[in-house]
Amino acid sequence: MTFGKPVGVGVLGASGYTGCELVRLLQSHPGAKILALGSRQYKGIPYAQVFPGLPSVQQNFDDDVTDPQVWIDKGISVVFAALPHAAFAERAKSFVDSGLQIIDLSADFRLHDPQQYPLRYHFEHPHPDLLKTAVYGLCEWEKEAIGQAQFVANPGCYTTASLLAVLPAIAAGLWNGDPIVINAISGISGAGRGLKLGTHFVEATNSIMPYKVGETHVHLGELRQVIGKAANVTHPCVIFNPHLAPMNRGISASIALPLNQAISQAEVQVLFEQRYVEAPFVRVLCGDELPETRHVRGSNRCDIAVRVAANGKMLLVFSAIDNLIKGASGQAIQNWNIMQKWPETTGLSVEGWTYA
Amino acid sequence: MTFGKPVGVGVLGASGYTGCELVRLLQSHPGAKILALGSRQYKGIPYAQVFPGLPSVQQNFDDDVTDPQVWIDKGISVVFAALPHAAFAERAKSFVDSGLQIIDLSADFRLHDPQQYPLRYHFEHPHPDLLKTAVYGLCEWEKEAIGQAQFVANPGCYTTASLLAVLPAIAAGLWNGDPIVINAISGISGAGRGLKLGTHFVEATNSIMPYKVGETHVHLGELRQVIGKAANVTHPCVIFNPHLAPMNRGISASIALPLNQAISQAEVQVLFEQRYVEAPFVRVLCGDELPETRHVRGSNRCDIAVRVAANGKMLLVFSAIDNLIKGASGQAIQNWNIMQKWPETTGLSVEGWTYA
Amino acid sequence: MTFGKPVGVGVLGASGYTGCELVRLLQSHPGAKILALGSRQYKGIPYAQVFPGLPSVQQNFDDDVTDPQVWIDKGISVVFAALPHAAFAERAKSFVDSGLQIIDLSADFRLHDPQQYPLRYHFEHPHPDLLKTAVYGLCEWEKEAIGQAQFVANPGCYTTASLLAVLPAIAAGLWNGDPIVINAISGISGAGRGLKLGTHFVEATNSIMPYKVGETHVHLGELRQVIGKAANVTHPCVIFNPHLAPMNRGISASIALPLNQAISQAEVQVLFEQRYVEAPFVRVLCGDELPETRHVRGSNRCDIAVRVAANGKMLLVFSAIDNLIKGASGQAIQNWNIMQKWPETTGLSVEGWTYA
Amino acid sequence: MTFGKPVGVGVLGASGYTGCELVRLLQSHPGAKILALGSRQYKGIPYAQVFPGLPSVQQNFDDDVTDPQVWIDKGISVVFAALPHAAFAERAKSFVDSGLQIIDLSADFRLHDPQQYPLRYHFEHPHPDLLKTAVYGLCEWEKEAIGQAQFVANPGCYTTASLLAVLPAIAAGLWNGDPIVINAISGISGAGRGLKLGTHFVEATNSIMPYKVGETHVHLGELRQVIGKAANVTHPCVIFNPHLAPMNRGISASIALPLNQAISQAEVQVLFEQRYVEAPFVRVLCGDELPETRHVRGSNRCDIAVRVAANGKMLLVFSAIDNLIKGASGQAIQNWNIMQKWPETTGLSVEGWTYA
Repeated sequence: MTFGKPVGVGVLGASGYTGCELVRLLQSHPGAKILALGSRQYKGIPYAQVFPGLPSVQQNFDDDVTDPQVWIDKGISVVFAALPHAAFAERAKSFVDSGLQIIDLSADFRLHDPQQYPLRYHFEHPHPDLLKTAVYGLCEWEKEAIGQAQFVANPGCYTTASLLAVLPAIAAGLWNGDPIVINAISGISGAGRGLKLGTHFVEATNSIMPYKVGETHVHLGELRQVIGKAANVTHPCVIFNPHLAPMNRGISASIALPLNQAISQAEVQVLFEQRYVEAPFVRVLCGDELPETRHVRGSNRCDIAVRVAANGKMLLVFSAIDNLIKGASGQAIQNWNIMQKWPETTGLSVEGWTYA
Repeated sequence: MTFGKPVGVGVLGASGYTGCELVRLLQSHPGAKILALGSRQYKGIPYAQVFPGLPSVQQNFDDDVTDPQVWIDKGISVVFAALPHAAFAERAKSFVDSGLQIIDLSADFRLHDPQQYPLRYHFEHPHPDLLKTAVYGLCEWEKEAIGQAQFVANPGCYTTASLLAVLPAIAAGLWNGDPIVINAISGISGAGRGLKLGTHFVEATNSIMPYKVGETHVHLGELRQVIGKAANVTHPCVIFNPHLAPMNRGISASIALPLNQAISQAEVQVLFEQRYVEAPFVRVLCGDELPETRHVRGSNRCDIAVRVAANGKMLLVFSAIDNLIKGASGQAIQNWNIMQKWPETTGLSVEGWTYA
Repeated sequence: MTFGKPVGVGVLGASGYTGCELVRLLQSHPGAKILALGSRQYKGIPYAQVFPGLPSVQQNFDDDVTDPQVWIDKGISVVFAALPHAAFAERAKSFVDSGLQIIDLSADFRLHDPQQYPLRYHFEHPHPDLLKTAVYGLCEWEKEAIGQAQFVANPGCYTTASLLAVLPAIAAGLWNGDPIVINAISGISGAGRGLKLGTHFVEATNSIMPYKVGETHVHLGELRQVIGKAANVTHPCVIFNPHLAPMNRGISASIALPLNQAISQAEVQVLFEQRYVEAPFVRVLCGDELPETRHVRGSNRCDIAVRVAANGKMLLVFSAIDNLIKGASGQAIQNWNIMQKWPETTGLSVEGWTYA
Repeated sequence: MTFGKPVGVGVLGASGYTGCELVRLLQSHPGAKILALGSRQYKGIPYAQVFPGLPSVQQNFDDDVTDPQVWIDKGISVVFAALPHAAFAERAKSFVDSGLQIIDLSADFRLHDPQQYPLRYHFEHPHPDLLKTAVYGLCEWEKEAIGQAQFVANPGCYTTASLLAVLPAIAAGLWNGDPIVINAISGISGAGRGLKLGTHFVEATNSIMPYKVGETHVHLGELRQVIGKAANVTHPCVIFNPHLAPMNRGISASIALPLNQAISQAEVQVLFEQRYVEAPFVRVLCGDELPETRHVRGSNRCDIAVRVAANGKMLLVFSAIDNLIKGASGQAIQNWNIMQKWPETTGLSVEGWTYA
């Protein structure tokens, strides 16, 4: 495919880990030309000074604009917002009204029910009306809607790893409604670039740390919303136990989903393979293979394996993604590719970094 | 407590990770004097040359004896066997008949049913009659039997982390019999010191790797045997998903146990605290605290936290141990302390190594 | 630049770490089409089964050919040899005579003096006459000779990091001939994929391990050959202390070079900047910046910083590379690009993987 | 040795890494009873809540006192000060005058020349007169003075690793006065528990990072003071290049010291062995062995190896310590043991944690 004049791109929150990853990916995307790198903290500083691993990004940080017109005047027509939760919600209305394409990587527009925001994210949503405008950008399940969207809410990292793993079974009507138990293990970059004692090297290395287990993690809102819709259940029962592990990137999810009918290992394998046969970024493993985060690191791929257990009472699903790519910036670009009718894989890699 | 003349100790398999850890702990144990360090591979070589971190062990490796009389003649009265699976089974009869105290760290005498060995461990048990002689050394649950034992089968590492976490609820009759889902994450030392591609630094670092998931891991035999007995069920349904994480030591277990009755968070908390009130090596965490493997590293402690979830349908239990200590060599010494009527904590630490 | 029909490429030793990295890089190189993946060990097995991070490589391993005609018949015109030391030397003559382009990543043809091989590499060189045929492929210093070469000996990883750092000063005549002290720290992938106790995760993690220090490391042959030539000295005095650090990739070199004249910090800075002004893969840092291996990981870049110390008596040079890329497979491709008169950067990245 | 009534101990700065390590070591020291745990930040909070790895420390944090009488009234007779630089200097006079034994782990009293403080530590020393009162507590070289001291300045971590390595040669008159080049690699705990971007897990992992190289690191003051005194030189030329590596603990130092005379490898080996023959915490390695930080982790030991290189022109010395133990808290306790005329090894371990 030949790309004409590249599209002007702006990144809000370009100094965080997902922002930096967006910049890294976008600068080699044949359809993109980065025109603005928003950051309140680093405004005016050369990007490559803050991220010396990216010397080709020869621009300075720009202001973290609230008025979209400033960026439209620069020639920007798509904005990737990688701001902390609540920050983009504030400025969303003017951005949406301006006609810009928007992919928001925060949680601000992932949930349809405004009442979830004070509960889970501790802020009153300033634009509850816009919650229905944003399309939930789980690419492999919402491709058609994304293709017509102006405004996409990019899914959470844990959510992506979990939903890609359970939706084929739930959509096929195999779930009996008993609690789905999701255990997930994430690399430390998932906790962001802000300074916290828990992400100090000396505290975080050499340890496995469960946190916000059971029903307390913010991603449960998304998980229940999508699973509930797929299963046609109002209050789906989902338990989610996240853990941190001493590595930078990667989410490994191990899920137990109670089945409502006898189904063989071979049938489930076929079900999953067929569901994702046209998805370039999902690989259903076969035989004894299980997803390891090292094999997806650096790629936009999600590896999945399924096992029937407990005499057919339980389906086990295992998945692995790179949390900064398929779980954030890569999926954001995949969403943009779909919005632009470009090949889904444009500027994204199916291959991982081996032995990074 | 004052110790008189220390007891002569021999270690079979002193060059593996659990063997080395036994040696490290025993050399500062006030009741022990190490008299033999068995190893086929390193026979005759100075111990501190193979393990330069232990310069005070000023002995050479001894032969990996099969005739116990050789060690009895040296003044040894207790043998810790840290051999690969199947290796101690071969020589067990003569050791038991010799009257030596034995703590076997392998799986060779953990299971009562000889038919499990060809199935799970791929060898025909040479001494099925002895399987009932060995006491299963889960210290906090078999203290009385251990106190009268000559021959103890030390539990597996994953098993210890899992059983200490679920047994209080199961013994209290709270389990409804639906599948218990155990997810566990282990440091790489659990895979042993033998050379395998999967434990090469470059392969194992920066990754989470599930393996032998569902119903395929060898520890399921032990798990089901003990859980079945506690629940009075012949074929208890237990799903076990182990994972490797890039750290040396530690097991983090996250368990979902379906409940048969309404029970409050406070009641479960009290149940667990009371069950372990006299156990010096179990700490039941309270409030928001969750077990992190870094806090038990270097100690013989098991940290446990409980949460009631899914409107009382599910009990979540989280535990953490140091796999080489509470999950192997430390528990072996704890077993020996109990056999000797010494304080359970002799030569063992409740404290961890902070920031190791 | 537009590439026509891609060139057929074969990789000998495609299952090692440098082999795998060659494959990863070559498969997205616009001028290359991989036609053979040699491996004695894995012959016939799908490549992506051994390296699941590279699902797009949809070929099986081929035999590790000794007869070049087999590969010429497949349409191959360039061979990258990533075999263990001594293995390519055996088959070199027939490959060279066949007219194939050859880039050898081993040490077999780096040294001009055949007597060095028994001394340093413990084998008698089978084709001493060919030692002068091979061009030493240090791209930034031998570009012209490489451009005319059929057969290139790709430099060692430590050597590349060290030579790029010291040659500007030595070529400018600043060295006084006293011992150059090179300390270097490498990630574990530098030790290869073969199984050794020293690269077991549990042994190698959490430690800094000096090894083969002083004048014992094999790379000293290369270092002295190139430094001696640049300084016009027969026996240049170079001390080299390598260390392993717990990370996969990266070499950090810290070098002290005794100066023979007063030179200011500013003058040295200019000297280095000018020497590399046209080198796309060398970045001379300025101000307080120092090379960190994380900033070059995933790239073919070498970062360098210089400091004058000890009242002008000593030049300190610091450099960092990704040992598998600029220190091996990336430089090999850079050599091929030069041989092919393609832009040096074809298929290679100046950017690193941030936070890999 | 039998200890009578334990000595009351107070720790200032008990919430930092060296403070925590002091507490861990002191609580199992047979001569110590911890009576106060000073911390401005955590005052009133249970110690084991901040450091859950140490459940036996059943005290709350106390105030970070400035008036020593408060602690004397509690029965304290020795104070370990583990405060940030400049903080103890402020209160030193009243503590010294009070007659308390003091071991200060900061740099505030390591240097004799008050003019060094504004230059290197950016503060005007408030009590320059006291700089001569404090004894520099490098145990293996100042044992006699320490034995008579009330007030000891505990050496820096890099300094300890470097001085123990070079002093035998310098004291023997072997140094020719040309620049000594010290390269050292430290674990991240050396950077302290304060939050900085550079010690965020995601930034610090998988990288080697030189910093403050050449003549800019604060420890150069100590290094030059002690080396100058030993060599009888006013301005000894020492170059010091520190690096951070992705591990918690450990310093590996690799030093090149220019020799003024021909000396054989065997002679140097004997020189070092004899110098430390009575030092329980220094091990001079022989043969091919080199110090690895993993073998000293958890111990108060310093491992050293020596090599003559460059035809006798250069002595290479390699050393390894645990920066938090021999490089800080362990040496502080060793100093206290000497002050108290107790065996030097009381409460300290020669053994490391194997595979921590």
